[in-house]
Amino acid sequence: MSDTPLVNDRLLRALRRQPVDHTPVWLMRQAGRYLPEYRAVRQRAGSFLAMAKTPEIACEVTLQPLARFDLDAAILFSDILTVPDAMGLGLHFIEGEGPKFTHPIREESDVARLSIPDMETDLRYVMDAVRLIRRELAGRVPLIGFSGSPWTLACYMVEGGGSRDFSRIKTMALDRPDLLHRLLTIITDAVIAYLDAQRAAGAQVLQVFDTWGGVLAPTMYRKFSLPYLARIAREVERGENEQKTPLILFGKGNAPYLEDLADCDVEAIGVDWLVELCEAARRTQGKVALQGNLDPATLYSSPAAIQEQVQYTLDRYMMGNGGSREGHVFNLGHGLSPDMDPEHIGVLVEAVHRLSRRRH
Amino acid sequence: MSDTPLVNDRLLRALRRQPVDHTPVWLMRQAGRYLPEYRAVRQRAGSFLAMAKTPEIACEVTLQPLARFDLDAAILFSDILTVPDAMGLGLHFIEGEGPKFTHPIREESDVARLSIPDMETDLRYVMDAVRLIRRELAGRVPLIGFSGSPWTLACYMVEGGGSRDFSRIKTMALDRPDLLHRLLTIITDAVIAYLDAQRAAGAQVLQVFDTWGGVLAPTMYRKFSLPYLARIAREVERGENEQKTPLILFGKGNAPYLEDLADCDVEAIGVDWLVELCEAARRTQGKVALQGNLDPATLYSSPAAIQEQVQYTLDRYMMGNGGSREGHVFNLGHGLSPDMDPEHIGVLVEAVHRLSRRRH
Repeated sequence: MSDTPLVNDRLLRALRRQPVDHTPVWLMRQAGRYLPEYRAVRQRAGSFLAMAKTPEIACEVTLQPLARFDLDAAILFSDILTVPDAMGLGLHFIEGEGPKFTHPIREESDVARLSIPDMETDLRYVMDAVRLIRRELAGRVPLIGFSGSPWTLACYMVEGGGSRDFSRIKTMALDRPDLLHRLLTIITDAVIAYLDAQRAAGAQVLQVFDTWGGVLAPTMYRKFSLPYLARIAREVERGENEQKTPLILFGKGNAPYLEDLADCDVEAIGVDWLVELCEAARRTQGKVALQGNLDPATLYSSPAAIQEQVQYTLDRYMMGNGGSREGHVFNLGHGLSPDMDPEHIGVLVEAVHRLSRRRH
Repeated sequence: MSDTPLVNDRLLRALRRQPVDHTPVWLMRQAGRYLPEYRAVRQRAGSFLAMAKTPEIACEVTLQPLARFDLDAAILFSDILTVPDAMGLGLHFIEGEGPKFTHPIREESDVARLSIPDMETDLRYVMDAVRLIRRELAGRVPLIGFSGSPWTLACYMVEGGGSRDFSRIKTMALDRPDLLHRLLTIITDAVIAYLDAQRAAGAQVLQVFDTWGGVLAPTMYRKFSLPYLARIAREVERGENEQKTPLILFGKGNAPYLEDLADCDVEAIGVDWLVELCEAARRTQGKVALQGNLDPATLYSSPAAIQEQVQYTLDRYMMGNGGSREGHVFNLGHGLSPDMDPEHIGVLVEAVHRLSRRRH
């Protein structure tokens, strides 16, 4: 399977900062509720979790956006919380409230109870989905596997779900840093095993989502998020040289830490829209590729405005990258939302290809 | 009234970057629901808006935290949305959902309908509260008046309330920038008149809250938030020299723009906890005082941790300010929350004074 040559390898080439005929594009949450065909499957499956846990369905929705748009990658349909779920926390979703855990991690004894899930039993449904998607893709585009970052997973595990102020985990960070580090270490072990297993199952690119690193004061980010990202970058098994599996570190609010992140052993940094790509490119000095960074809210505006913003984003990258488009993966600064118009997403994808091809 | 000499002028001196015997401290939302005596008044008054619109009650709750804590300033108890309310948008609060407007601004005709409220009729309750508080304070500490920033007020006015993604106003920014600029211009006119009136009524320091500037991409921030902040700084009537009324620009997520903000004609910049004060001080080169910037979530941790974080914050400012504490106003990076323990707030205030005095 891993021997099937890729028909479209633009993403891999861009992540390696090699020349491409146009800038590759994929979109976070590209398999999602904004698509009527996704909503139909979800209704049939009954719930988001049932979809994620059934490899055939996960495969079906992973492929849906590729049938509509000329995207340069597929990303596994799953959730970052599959790992804590497999650790026994009891993931469930409450309508309108988002994810919740039945057994959040609050005490010493909660942490002591945790162990690393077995990837081919506890999380077999993820690996089966990866294998199935790879087979169905048949080399059309690469498949991206992913995990939440240790800090982000810890946020959900300690808070017991989403949070507005992250008061429980921040209190743990100040009052019991030892306990939080122990928790983050176990999560990191699990994340490394999870990414290794996805790669072994066929994922050709890996992305870590540090969704909540940006809620931390800098000194706290450097204690509780960054070192664990760096460890993942060092320890995930990724092969060597031209065959090395690229790793992307995406983080909301990671702009203050671009220099630190670029010094991790990763191929790319994914940034949100709060930093200009020209600045991001200058600050990372060509050490990594950059992924991003259109404000997703742009997709609510008119096709003309979307195209203009695509052009702006492409130009800003080039401006900071010595006039070259190499090393840019176009994406949003965060995920798509359910109320977005699929036609506008088509406008975006088309514009990225057309406007980046023109100047190659 | 404005002739009563201040017993405690540390805040004014710090904002002017003059020496003080210890670092002054006040806290955003210091008059608020975390205080049982506040909750008692609120129950009596019936609603938040009734409190804000009754000068005697606004005065009472403004003074409450001063009776408990050795704070170096009072801040007018009010809401940033009084201005759009006076412009006829129909402000109301829905339990658990926050502020809403009956008549949001979406169309050309909505903007055309807007006019600048008369400060001594439409917003007389605010000016009466300022006058009453000044009288009751009798010069103990200075009184801070405030307004929302034009961009932040426009967010609420266009979205019709709070928002998760600011899709309506961002769409207006891309599809109808002319209309949004017209709206921001009218709001800015109103904000300038509002701050002028508060100062005339007795406010001794003014703060502008740009709560939502940080949701904008840099190029959008520089178009739709920054220029209106700069205009306020230029045009608000503030007197001259030693008598000049200090103006503080606070912004969540304003760290990328500290250089731009320091070049506005303001005395201080208020920053959130996502930037280290040493970096903020270095980047603003002593052009302005800095206010902040402890993560409010710190208040959920133990007294020992709170004191340690206070020390850290004080030290970081000094480190970036050539070893001097001058020009630092201690505050949180954002407001207090209802579930915070008043005793912990006492620990914070005491620690700021004690730990900053030690080294003067």
